Amino acid sequence: MNKLEIQEIENALEQYLPQEKDLRKNLFESMEYSLMAGGKRIRPQLVLEFCRVCGGDAAKAMPFACAVEMIHSYSLIHDDLPCMDDDDLRRGKPTNHKVYGEAIALLAGDALLTLAFETMLSPASIAAVGADRAARAAGELAKAAGAHGMVGGQIIDLESEDKQVSLEVLEKMDEGKTGALILASCRMGCILAGAGEEQLRAADVYARSIGLAFQIVDDLLDVTGDAALLGKNTGMDSERGKSTYVSLLGVEKARETVERLTQTAVDALSVFGDSAKELEEFAVALARRDH
Amino acid sequence: MNKLEIQEIENALEQYLPQEKDLRKNLFESMEYSLMAGGKRIRPQLVLEFCRVCGGDAAKAMPFACAVEMIHSYSLIHDDLPCMDDDDLRRGKPTNHKVYGEAIALLAGDALLTLAFETMLSPASIAAVGADRAARAAGELAKAAGAHGMVGGQIIDLESEDKQVSLEVLEKMDEGKTGALILASCRMGCILAGAGEEQLRAADVYARSIGLAFQIVDDLLDVTGDAALLGKNTGMDSERGKSTYVSLLGVEKARETVERLTQTAVDALSVFGDSAKELEEFAVALARRDH
Repeated sequence: MNKLEIQEIENALEQYLPQEKDLRKNLFESMEYSLMAGGKRIRPQLVLEFCRVCGGDAAKAMPFACAVEMIHSYSLIHDDLPCMDDDDLRRGKPTNHKVYGEAIALLAGDALLTLAFETMLSPASIAAVGADRAARAAGELAKAAGAHGMVGGQIIDLESEDKQVSLEVLEKMDEGKTGALILASCRMGCILAGAGEEQLRAADVYARSIGLAFQIVDDLLDVTGDAALLGKNTGMDSERGKSTYVSLLGVEKARETVERLTQTAVDALSVFGDSAKELEEFAVALARRDH
Repeated sequence: MNKLEIQEIENALEQYLPQEKDLRKNLFESMEYSLMAGGKRIRPQLVLEFCRVCGGDAAKAMPFACAVEMIHSYSLIHDDLPCMDDDDLRRGKPTNHKVYGEAIALLAGDALLTLAFETMLSPASIAAVGADRAARAAGELAKAAGAHGMVGGQIIDLESEDKQVSLEVLEKMDEGKTGALILASCRMGCILAGAGEEQLRAADVYARSIGLAFQIVDDLLDVTGDAALLGKNTGMDSERGKSTYVSLLGVEKARETVERLTQTAVDALSVFGDSAKELEEFAVALARRDH
């Protein structure tokens, strides 16, 4: 959870990317363009940190940490495509398809999703953590990324476009869209360290709490942060006219919920003892972030 | 390699699909629409058959057989999208995006690719074959499906659109686009049965030979089969004006090559003894097919 660790994650991501300069060069560059475009690297940090607090060797969890980031990255490329959100910019840079065209962007997303599994299930990764833990961790990520997890959340988002939805639907959507990968990250860290059921249960509570808090803070920032200056201060996502936590709960109740969820996340860490200090600070920092 | 086995594969595929009738219903239906749209089921048959000839229990290989078909199916959905081949029909039926729209077709492809790994790495699949074989077989498929395999072949296809290419480039493209999954299918069957290096080497030769023969037969059918009636009788893929095995080798040489490759495939099977009779017939049938 520090700059040094983020640099290590960046180095590892770079190393797992295909590098040949042949006829596939544009595909490989397009994959690198999105995967190495920065970002907070929250998910890989969670994998490494949960591995550590469960007594595991975080270095051996690195391929799995990078795999989650590859899946996150592919989902952003596909989300930005014209048939989805049709976004021109991502983190201040042109989106993948704006640079490489739609066909390559589509394939780069497919290739990053596949590379996640190739990276986790390489002979070296399997040898490092053992086949049992490798298969179980990779299975966890597959479940989280697919139709019952992230892609499932994306379809709920799509189907409720321009609609007011209930708090229940909003939560189910976010549980898939962002919650599932955060949950998988925490669980994978535990699994790779050989953690027991009690530790996994604590990781579940922590992950679900910070995952939901993260979304509510996003909505709050749209209302109270810089975005408010751009006219997004109605508590509705102005782009789509759909419900947000702020429109459904109100600013005050939304803030209280973030506080409560953060406390729940911190309390859950008690089973890990003092070693979980960084995870505690991480939960608090996520709740207090201003961008 | 018979109707009964194909029915078993169809049943298993159906069973692995998500079924809930909730907000994600359209996604799930879209996945089913393409995955259950028929097809020869060549790849899953190869997984099961190689498992069998190596002395393994084919029933336990079923999740892995289905996973290859899921990846094949996702690749067809994405290939048909407007930003790729922009096809309206697939196997005589409207393509996925024509029925469900581009966004859902994109997500259905992503979800099927992910479901392949979820299916191979479920607790039940891991328990059936052991974590060692499950992780290795899933890793084999990931490598074959990604940037160095199938997606790599798709990008070579894209980059050489409307160009005449050399035989070397054509082979490299097909090695990725179709060869990689065929190779992975044969290897996975061996791996799941705990086969040794000699058997894997034989599977490699068989797979590479039938994979290339399959492509050449495709090109021959475009010239000599029904397609000829539609004006595709120049030995060039009329849609794209690109090179084919027939345009590069001529009909006679192309036919000889198919014969030679089929013989190589059949010869490679000798290490498996009499049990490989079905794989032999399969190679011959692929070479002699008329559609």
